[in-house]
Order: sequence, then structure tokens, then C-alpha cells
Amino acid sequence: MTEQTALVLEEKGKLSIRDIDLAQSLGPDDVQIAIHTVGICGSDVHYYTHGRIGQFVVNEPMVLGHEAAGTVTAVGDRVSHLAVGDRVCMEPGIPDMTSRASKLGIYNVDPAVTFWATPPIHGCLTPSVVHPAAFTYKLPDNVSFAEGAMVEPFAIGMQAAAKANIVPGDVGLVIGAGPIGVMTALAALAGGCARVMIYDVVAEKLQVAGQYDGVIALNPAQPVETQVLEATGGWGADVVFECSGHPSAFKTLFATPRPGGCVVFVGMPVDDFRFDLVAAQAKELRMETVFRYANVYDRAIELIASGKIDLKPLISGTFPFEQSVEAFDRAVEARPTDVKLQITLPG
Amino acid sequence: MTEQTALVLEEKGKLSIRDIDLAQSLGPDDVQIAIHTVGICGSDVHYYTHGRIGQFVVNEPMVLGHEAAGTVTAVGDRVSHLAVGDRVCMEPGIPDMTSRASKLGIYNVDPAVTFWATPPIHGCLTPSVVHPAAFTYKLPDNVSFAEGAMVEPFAIGMQAAAKANIVPGDVGLVIGAGPIGVMTALAALAGGCARVMIYDVVAEKLQVAGQYDGVIALNPAQPVETQVLEATGGWGADVVFECSGHPSAFKTLFATPRPGGCVVFVGMPVDDFRFDLVAAQAKELRMETVFRYANVYDRAIELIASGKIDLKPLISGTFPFEQSVEAFDRAVEARPTDVKLQITLPG
Amino acid sequence: MTEQTALVLEEKGKLSIRDIDLAQSLGPDDVQIAIHTVGICGSDVHYYTHGRIGQFVVNEPMVLGHEAAGTVTAVGDRVSHLAVGDRVCMEPGIPDMTSRASKLGIYNVDPAVTFWATPPIHGCLTPSVVHPAAFTYKLPDNVSFAEGAMVEPFAIGMQAAAKANIVPGDVGLVIGAGPIGVMTALAALAGGCARVMIYDVVAEKLQVAGQYDGVIALNPAQPVETQVLEATGGWGADVVFECSGHPSAFKTLFATPRPGGCVVFVGMPVDDFRFDLVAAQAKELRMETVFRYANVYDRAIELIASGKIDLKPLISGTFPFEQSVEAFDRAVEARPTDVKLQITLPG
Amino acid sequence: MTEQTALVLEEKGKLSIRDIDLAQSLGPDDVQIAIHTVGICGSDVHYYTHGRIGQFVVNEPMVLGHEAAGTVTAVGDRVSHLAVGDRVCMEPGIPDMTSRASKLGIYNVDPAVTFWATPPIHGCLTPSVVHPAAFTYKLPDNVSFAEGAMVEPFAIGMQAAAKANIVPGDVGLVIGAGPIGVMTALAALAGGCARVMIYDVVAEKLQVAGQYDGVIALNPAQPVETQVLEATGGWGADVVFECSGHPSAFKTLFATPRPGGCVVFVGMPVDDFRFDLVAAQAKELRMETVFRYANVYDRAIELIASGKIDLKPLISGTFPFEQSVEAFDRAVEARPTDVKLQITLPG
Repeated sequence: MTEQTALVLEEKGKLSIRDIDLAQSLGPDDVQIAIHTVGICGSDVHYYTHGRIGQFVVNEPMVLGHEAAGTVTAVGDRVSHLAVGDRVCMEPGIPDMTSRASKLGIYNVDPAVTFWATPPIHGCLTPSVVHPAAFTYKLPDNVSFAEGAMVEPFAIGMQAAAKANIVPGDVGLVIGAGPIGVMTALAALAGGCARVMIYDVVAEKLQVAGQYDGVIALNPAQPVETQVLEATGGWGADVVFECSGHPSAFKTLFATPRPGGCVVFVGMPVDDFRFDLVAAQAKELRMETVFRYANVYDRAIELIASGKIDLKPLISGTFPFEQSVEAFDRAVEARPTDVKLQITLPG
Repeated sequence: MTEQTALVLEEKGKLSIRDIDLAQSLGPDDVQIAIHTVGICGSDVHYYTHGRIGQFVVNEPMVLGHEAAGTVTAVGDRVSHLAVGDRVCMEPGIPDMTSRASKLGIYNVDPAVTFWATPPIHGCLTPSVVHPAAFTYKLPDNVSFAEGAMVEPFAIGMQAAAKANIVPGDVGLVIGAGPIGVMTALAALAGGCARVMIYDVVAEKLQVAGQYDGVIALNPAQPVETQVLEATGGWGADVVFECSGHPSAFKTLFATPRPGGCVVFVGMPVDDFRFDLVAAQAKELRMETVFRYANVYDRAIELIASGKIDLKPLISGTFPFEQSVEAFDRAVEARPTDVKLQITLPG
Repeated sequence: MTEQTALVLEEKGKLSIRDIDLAQSLGPDDVQIAIHTVGICGSDVHYYTHGRIGQFVVNEPMVLGHEAAGTVTAVGDRVSHLAVGDRVCMEPGIPDMTSRASKLGIYNVDPAVTFWATPPIHGCLTPSVVHPAAFTYKLPDNVSFAEGAMVEPFAIGMQAAAKANIVPGDVGLVIGAGPIGVMTALAALAGGCARVMIYDVVAEKLQVAGQYDGVIALNPAQPVETQVLEATGGWGADVVFECSGHPSAFKTLFATPRPGGCVVFVGMPVDDFRFDLVAAQAKELRMETVFRYANVYDRAIELIASGKIDLKPLISGTFPFEQSVEAFDRAVEARPTDVKLQITLPG
Repeated sequence: MTEQTALVLEEKGKLSIRDIDLAQSLGPDDVQIAIHTVGICGSDVHYYTHGRIGQFVVNEPMVLGHEAAGTVTAVGDRVSHLAVGDRVCMEPGIPDMTSRASKLGIYNVDPAVTFWATPPIHGCLTPSVVHPAAFTYKLPDNVSFAEGAMVEPFAIGMQAAAKANIVPGDVGLVIGAGPIGVMTALAALAGGCARVMIYDVVAEKLQVAGQYDGVIALNPAQPVETQVLEATGGWGADVVFECSGHPSAFKTLFATPRPGGCVVFVGMPVDDFRFDLVAAQAKELRMETVFRYANVYDRAIELIASGKIDLKPLISGTFPFEQSVEAFDRAVEARPTDVKLQITLPG
């Protein structure tokens, strides 16, 4: 048992920085990491404000945080690809690698996955963690800790872009310009789209996205389908990423892709919604869904290191660990221009 | 202009066999075919009973029928792969082959497609038709006219099976045991599934399907998801074909596929339905839709000719052309064991 | 250390049944299996007659055998999906499941794989083995031990069929009618092909293959490409499986697939060969290669259990364990009609 | 018959600018185009210097040129998506769109394709041509004629990138830094690769390629496989594009891709070569081939218009039509830094 400081969600609405017992032993396939930077995710905030997400309920105090980068401080006996001193970022889900899903390469849908800061699993807003080496990735010298901690949210965009099976030069459309929408737009653009249109009803969010070359902010005051059809000569977008999770977006969703195109459902709607299946069938659309990510971290880091993806403009604020509660309260405000807030630790 | 006898839907609820002017001229890329057998499709019956399907309305008298086989009686100047006397079946949709969709190989979603017996286009329940040679397929000697006229409905099952990207040995599930459900089950089985479970609330429909080796009729009195999970050790089916179009089927639909599996939406629901997207996302399902078919006829004929697919048990009744109205009235009865009724002409 | 009887390849050309020390300890994720049936593979025979395969050299005595079925006699602490008494077959390659390749789902190409009876790893021609539960598969009641021991060689055919991405109703061609060629033909047929032509220069091998419905033995005395083009109206086969590994087969190989078709290289040629790349480019062929298999056992067992695949006619002879050397000497004869010889143990 | 000026290859080694009869009539699905810019392709040069390419022999005077852009001067009766005055580029291959290959969407491998400046079909180095509207593509205002005439060679790189099925963030490798190699590197980078290494034995060619961000010129003096493995931590490139067609490149080709990776054969070797199939099988590589392109022009134009692809630095020289022979003689010199020479006409 290790007693160490952490940002603890005691219960719905109550955060504290305090010592907590975290069972951590370094197995032969593990590494120990001093945490340097942790990003605040919408799910962290949601546990803070609601105490639950769907079936996952915070019944006991839980350490938050799952978007992390740091430095390796110890390695297990069988670990060969990492060494003490390596700067790394971590994939927060730990599957059973011998499961049927994992053997297929889709370890993200292994029912046995445990995931940082998903009850009852503690997260990583604490100075030191132990993690499987197989899910710990070395950062190149030109990728900062701050960028390393962005790999996790960006990985969702990467998973969405991978699922779309983008053909080079495709035209993309992203609906919803929150953090995941912006990351998805960037992943789709770097991943082969010639241009990516992005739509949201909040103009300020579109400004953040629209600062990137190749990302085209649509007019929030006009129907998205009208704009997309006009911008594609009436043909439609090759791939559409639904990142809003909002019922109103689903009404005209199938008017935006081209015949034979693809819709990737990234955003998770709070409620069921009415679904115009016949509209999808009339275009014989393919629909993909995204659940976290698998086999994406390597490629995400490649894109950041090569300079094709610059996530730094999306970091809206950085707080020292002692101000973690203030950081979360700022996150609760949900300012439209706050894409990502991060917390730094001494590690 | 050619005046010839045909089965004419005069208006909703009124059929007659009478002479009608059908504009037919043999172009250089066309063939002329003496029709021998025409199957009755649910859409033909629906036009008869309702006068419309969605946006397609019968405003003027229209010849019915689009599932046809016959004998070539004349060929255009540029036709080389067919000759007078060839026994053939015909793909009823005619796209613009220079369109953007057709160039991509997905001519079925070309917006310019015209389709037999879809208003205002006349169908083929008439002794002679002219058709593009490119969409007319020669029948091998061991494939009868009756089987040739089954290629069209079977092609929908083939399209569904192709869209599923079946991996050899997959476990399939078909929901809905109407004609399309049964055809889809057979296509999935011949197309690589080790076994295909099929579910319906009507026991008699399941008996027709269950007579085929490898097609496993589930118990209509028990929940489909319970049975599927039990039959797959809790893992789920690799591919699920939704062929019912019924709202009740959608409620538990995503409980039946395995993590990372595929759902193919074949049946067209009359209304929008509530869609549990999060359940699909939690398994990261792929969802495909089917709109008619493209590039399927060759392969459907191959499967029938090779003996892997036997559609003859699905032909429930055959009527001479003069009894076409009786045939349609029988079809209106929708007997559970009537999978396919056919009409034969002198051709 | 466990001293137990085994069939030991002492050195090139010398087999003996004798006691040998086999280090076997049951870990928490392992099962112990009493071996019942072991098939003799061409690679076993090749080590016997040549003492090596490529870079793999028999430098020390090695137990042979890797195609096995048996009964679980003990299970490790963390094993939940298997129990003592279960009848099982085993995947003989053991990868590092946390490797980069394994995470991608392609654990067969993990460089760290160890494989039964590939030097210096002992095989399974011995009464009891310990194996990872994740690579041990339960046999349904209607699948015999003899069939269970056929899953391994059949898995190669399954991998080939999976790589081909067969579209339902495709026409297949297999070149080379040895054991792997026949298994591949059956896998391709069950996996979605309408018919599979098979070619070999040895007529007796073709007779074994040709006994299956849907497998069409070509004439060994005529050029394969002529026969394939005639049988497909000049178009070519959709998928071609090269299972001979013979230089003469490569000369006309690319004359047999259709434009845009696929060639799967299953057979491993002893030497480099001259390759007519331009002929492949002119048809824009896709070429796939096969190295053992991954994620195939479940589906292979499904196909055997469902009755779509019957491997029993391919078992040409069965020998008790005490006659293992005789069995191998018979295998060395390479009789054209001997597809698979098996050895049974008391287990 | 239309008598008009053209650059005519009279026979091997002899070019002249003279009047020639070119049969051109504007059909209902055609457009007439005033040619503005034509690029010189290696195949044009090869016909000039050798009088043949493989089976294609220049037996009669033939107009050269197939990389063209210009302005629409007349449109056929059924053409709706183009108008007089539109600036366009043209796909030089004309398939039979009703053929079996074209219906599948792979019209580039239709055996009936006719192609500009492939004997006996005249090319487009002449002031006016008639072309099917379906293979004529409108250029956006921000794409120049010079860039429009680059779409054809770039389309080969696009086809290669599309065939590779790049997953976002993949690492690419191009072998051979001639015009097609450079175009392929750019297409792979824009098409989703994080970075693309490029190798050639001629240092000056690498300098042209290396000027692009994300394209990494390897050291021509060191073995490519050593450099690639070092640059990828021993793993290998995800996708390898063989663009040299040179026998020496094939020797170590399969040492460069990762396990389970892909090799795309773009370059066409003059002779057969020895092929180490077992090395490809040991990594279970997928191999794709490229023959021209299909369904690529739209997406190529999108990438140029969006600014993701800048082909202008590759235009090494521009000659007026009257100096066409000088332009060809410069092309014959094959200066390493001459990626593309173009000829402009008054159109």
C-alpha cells in the first residue's frame, strides 16, 4: 500500500487534495511513472458535477484524471522498451490481453478493461503511478509533456479518423466543435482529408477550430446540410463525424454525406433519439461507432512529432497541482474557448 | 410505340390485364427479351394495396413486376456478350453509368437510376421488354427461368451479405423471416457464415427458413438476445442482419452482436424509431445499410448454378399470366408460408 | 522438470520413442492437457528428413508434433473458460500478447512467437502438455479428437480464405492439391466462394479434392490458365490461392485472376523465383501472403461443428503412439492420396 | 475530319509540329476543350526515344501528350455539369463504362480502355480536343492550368496512396525519387502518413523531394533498410511504395515494411526480377499494384485546391508549343532536378 497525495473526488461536488492509499506494486511488465501533466477531461468534470456517468457511479472517494504524461522512475524485470528517465504518456485503459477481443486487436472493447478514473478505478492526478509498460509510450524529444498529455483526447479523434477509412483527398465534415470535435477535425485532416468543414451552434467554438488551415468553420446561423451540399457541388461530404451527441444534430445528419459515404458516431447522446434509417439506406451509408481507441497512441505521437498536428493552441490554461480544485471549477464553467485545461505536477 | 398486353395497376386497388402503349426501341446497347417468369415482390403488392411507397406515388396506370427471367429475342448492334435464344434474367435498375456514383462502382445509389415498376417507370409483367445488355445476365443451362426470376430478390440478400464483410466461419443472425430475411440468411450462409440463426415472431415463417441445413430457427416465444448469447457462449453474433424493419426489433438489436461486430440494416422501417446509439458505441459496432444491390447478379447466379444455393423451395405458387390478378390477391393475403409467388408468360 | 515419454527427433533421420525431460509447470493462465490425437505435418516430416527448415535447425533432440487435440486435466488459477474434462484443441504458436504486433491483432507475426516443434521448442507428441488457456479451444460434442487435430492445418486454409476477402459468390482457384491446397479449397468454398477450381500436376491428388461438391478438379494435362479462362467466360478467377510453392506455377500465375482480383500466396517456395510484376500490375491485382494464422481457430471449429466442413475424408491413416516411427516413415513416402496421417495417444 | 496542328511523333526519334487529320466529333456526352498546358510524361519520352513501350508500338504517326488542362469551348447535348468557359483537366483513359470492370468501379482495368498517346490513339498536344464530359474535371479558380496539367501524374501517386489503405499517422517509405516517386510521397503524406521517407541512389533527386515538410530524404550512400529500421525503432514502415522499378531495389524490399505492413508496387520493372516471397510471407505482407488510376481526379483536385498539396515546385520548365521539340529534347536529357516539363498552347 502506498499512501500518497492525490486529487480526490470525495463525492459528487466535493474535491480535495489529500493523502490516499493507492495500492501500487511494480510487476515485471510494469513501469513506475512520475506524473508531470494531466489534462482535465469532460468525463472528469461530469463525475465532479454529477457523481456518475451512466452506469458508472462514484460510490467511494476516487482519484480523478486519465490524460497524463510523465517520466519513468522504475521499470519491471521484463520491460525492455522503456528505461528510467524516459518521458512518456500513458493509455489509461488496461485490457486483459488474452481475451477474445484483445486477440482480435480490438482491446478497447474487451469487457474486462479497467480505465483510470472510471469508478471504482483511481485516476492519475497523483505524483506517481504504476502502469503496464505495454500501454506506456515514449515521447520523442520534440514532444512536450503538455502535448503528451493531449495524446489521450486526441486519440479519440484518431480512432474516429481511422474508423472512417478516409481515402486520400476526401472531404470531411465534423458536427460539434467541442474538444473532441476539434481533435477529430484535426485527425481527419492529417489523416487524409483535403478539407474538413466543422459546424456548431456556438460561434466561439468554431473560431478555435477555424484557426487551422484546412478546417473550414461553417456558419452557425445557417443549416449545416445546405452549406455542405453547396460546398460539395450537391454531392455531400465523403465522411461525416457526429461529435455533438445532440438530438437536434441527428435530424438532418443523413442529408450531409454523399451517396455511399460514411458517418462516424463519436459523440454519445444522453438519450435515445429518433433515427431516420431510411434516409441512411437511400444513400447506402456505412456507419461506424467509436469507443475510446486501440492501437492509436503510436500514430498519434508520430503525427505530433512530425509537426502535422499542432495541439498546443488547444491548451487554454495550465494550473499547478495545488490549484487543481480551481482548475476543475474553471472547467465547470465550460467557456466556449476553453478547449483543454491542464494540471502540472512536480514529476 | 408498342401496344402490348400487360398487367396494369390502374390505380390503388385496381389491377387489369390489358393492352397498353409501352415505348420500347432497341438501342445499340440493348437487348429485347421475351419474358417467361416474373416474381411478385412485396413492393408490387404495396403499390397495389396502398398506391404508393414513400415518395413514389402511382399517379398514372403503371405495369407492375421487376423480378424477371426470359429469352433474348433481339440484340442491339454493339452487344457482343448475348445472343438471340439466350436464357437471361434482368437487373431492373438502370443507372447513368457515367455518373459520379456509377464510376465509383456504386451505381445503385446513382440518383438518376430508373427502376422497373417504381413510378412512373413501367415494370415487366408484359410479354416483351427492351433492356440494356449490361444489366441482362445469361443463365447457365442448369438454372431454370423460375430460379432466374428469383435472382432479383436474392440479390438483396447477397448485397447484405457482401456489405457485412463476412469472415469465413462467422456466426450470423437474421431478424425477420420474411422473403428478404430468408434470402439474406441463405446468402450469409453461402457467403461464409458457419451457421445463421433466424428469428421472427411468426413461427410458420421460421419453419420455412429452418428447413435449410445451417439455418437455425430460434424460438419465437423467447427473447432473441437471450438465445443468441446462449448460442455463442455469451459473445454474440459476428454479423446481424436486421430484416424486419419493425420498431420492436430495434429495442434489443444491439444486445445481439459481439463486441466489434456488424449490424446490416436491410429492412426499411415505416417510421423513424428510437435508436440506442450508446449501446452500439459501447461495442464499437459497424453498421451497414443496403439499398437494392450492385455488382451482385453474377455472383448470385454463380451460387445458384453451383448448387450452393437452392431457391426452389421458396417458390410457393406459380400462376399463368391470365391469372395475374388472382396471383396478386393471393399475395395480398400474405400467408406466412408463401415466400414467393410467380407468374409465367408464354415467352 | 517432468520426465515423460515422447516421440523425439534425435537428429536428422533418427526418431525414437523415449523418455525426455520436458520443463512444464502449470501457470495461472495455463491448462494441462492429456494429448489424444496428433496429426503429422509436412514440416514434421521435413525436420525428420532434412534436419532443418530454412533458418530453423535441429541442433538438439526435439519432440515433434504440433497438430493436437486432447482433454484438459488441470487448469490454472485464473482460467475461467475451460474446465477439467473439456475436450480441446490447441493453437501451437505462443506469442507475447503485449507486443506491438499482438496488440494489433496479428499475433502470428509477433517476432517473439514460440511454436511447437520448431527448433528449439519441443512439440506435443507426448502424453501431456501444458499450454496457455488463451490458445486452447473447447471442442463441441460433435467434433471428434481426430477432427480437433485437423484444426491446425485447416487453420492455414482458413487464414488464406480470410486474407482473400472473399465476396459471396466469388469464383476461386487453388493451385497445388497437397494437404494445404485441399484445406484451402474447402475453406474458400465454405468461406463464400460459389465454386473452387483446383489444379495440380498429380492426378491422384486432384481426385481427393474433387470428391467434394463445389470443388472442381481441373485437368492436370492442360494449362491451368486456359481452363480457368474458359470456365469463367474469359474473365478469370476472383481469388487465386497459390499453394504449390513451385516455380513452374508462378510462370502463368497472373494469367488466372480477373482484373482487380486477388492472389493469396500460401505455399512457400524453396527458392526465389522470377516474378512477372508487370502482369500483376496490368490487372492491378492485390496480393496477400499467409504466415500461419491468427484468430482463426474459433471460426474453424464453428465450420466443422456446423457440418459445412467435413475433414474426416482427409484422414488417410491412424497409428497408435507406439507406431509413431512407422507413421512417420509412411509420411515420408508422400503417397499422393495420403492427405493426413494421425497418431493417437491414450489421453 | 479535322485537320489541325499537333506535335506528331512520326516514328522513333522523329518529332514534328505539323497539321494532321484528327477525327473529332462532338457527341452528346462530350465536351470540346481548347488545350492550354500539357506536361511531358516519361512515357511520351520513351515512345520518342524507343518507338515502343512493351506491346505498344508506334507504327504510324501519333500525336503525343496526355497530361492536359484547358478551357471548354463546346458541350454536347446531354452534358450538364460543364459549360463553355470552364477551366478543366482531363483523365486521358476512356473506358467502356458498361463493361464488367467499369461496373465494379475499376474502370482503369477495363480491357477496352483507350488512352491518349498510347498507340494507336492520338494524344492531346494539339490546340483542341474532344473528350467525354465524364472524364473532364472542372478546376477551381485557385488551381492554375499548370497545376491542372499536373493532376494526371499526381493521380498515379494518389492511386498508390489509396491502394495502401493508409491509417492516419502511418509511417511511409518511397523507394525511387523520380517524378512518380515524389508525387507518391506527397500523396501519401497528404493522404494520412505522419512522415514519408524517400530513398534514391541519385542525391539530386532526393533534394527535390526533401524540400517538402514531412518528406524525409534518406542517405543515398547507406542501405535503405538500415535507415528505415533505425528510424522506426526496428519496427519498419507501415507502407512502402516501390517507385523505382529497379531490380536492385527488390533485393532488400521486404526488409523495410513492418510485420503485417503493405508494399505498393508503382514502378514497372523492365524485366522480371527475383522475388523473395518467403520474406514477404514471414511478415504476412499485403502487396498492392497500381495501374494508372480510377476515381482519383476529384480527390486530387481537392487536395491541390485546399493547399495541402503544392505541385508548383515540381514544374521545372515551361515551353511554348512552337518549342515542343526542344522541350522533348530537354526531357530526353533526364536531368535529375527536372521533375516535370510542360508545354503551353494558346488555348
